[in-house]
Amino acid sequence: MKKLFNFFKNEQEKNPANVAKERLKVIVAHERRQRNQPDYLQDLQRDLMLVIQKYVEIEADNVQVQLDSEGNYSVLELNVTLPN
Amino acid sequence: MKKLFNFFKNEQEKNPANVAKERLKVIVAHERRQRNQPDYLQDLQRDLMLVIQKYVEIEADNVQVQLDSEGNYSVLELNVTLPN
Repeated sequence: MKKLFNFFKNEQEKNPANVAKERLKVIVAHERRQRNQPDYLQDLQRDLMLVIQKYVEIEADNVQVQLDSEGNYSVLELNVTLPN
Repeated sequence: MKKLFNFFKNEQEKNPANVAKERLKVIVAHERRQRNQPDYLQDLQRDLMLVIQKYVEIEADNVQVQLDSEGNYSVLELNVTLPN
């Protein structure tokens, strides 16, 4: 867990302009047994946004989404900057 | 994004016994502007599980949950091993 905190803090320190913002980062990593298994992260992304919106106000402009695959890994990353 | 792939792969390589498993890892990092702001990650965790269950079968025994805070960061980590 310590490693995770450092991971997020290091990312933050690269972008000091955003220090005073409240932010949420969601990462979903799916490791399939085989490369050709179906992947559902794109659909999951839509549902995750709906869940998060129950807790915080999200503006579409303030969400960055990245979905990437490499081998049998898929990683979905959502970066949300919350309104002040 | 490259760094993220490496992050997950390195974790995987530490535990080669699980190589043939299908797995899902969900990380939610909340960065608050101030330390004393309320945090909703514990409630969000329950909702995230419900969403993920729409896509994959989850057995309670196969889910590890860790929720931790440091300064104005909270990090929720869900590790799900999917049934074969």
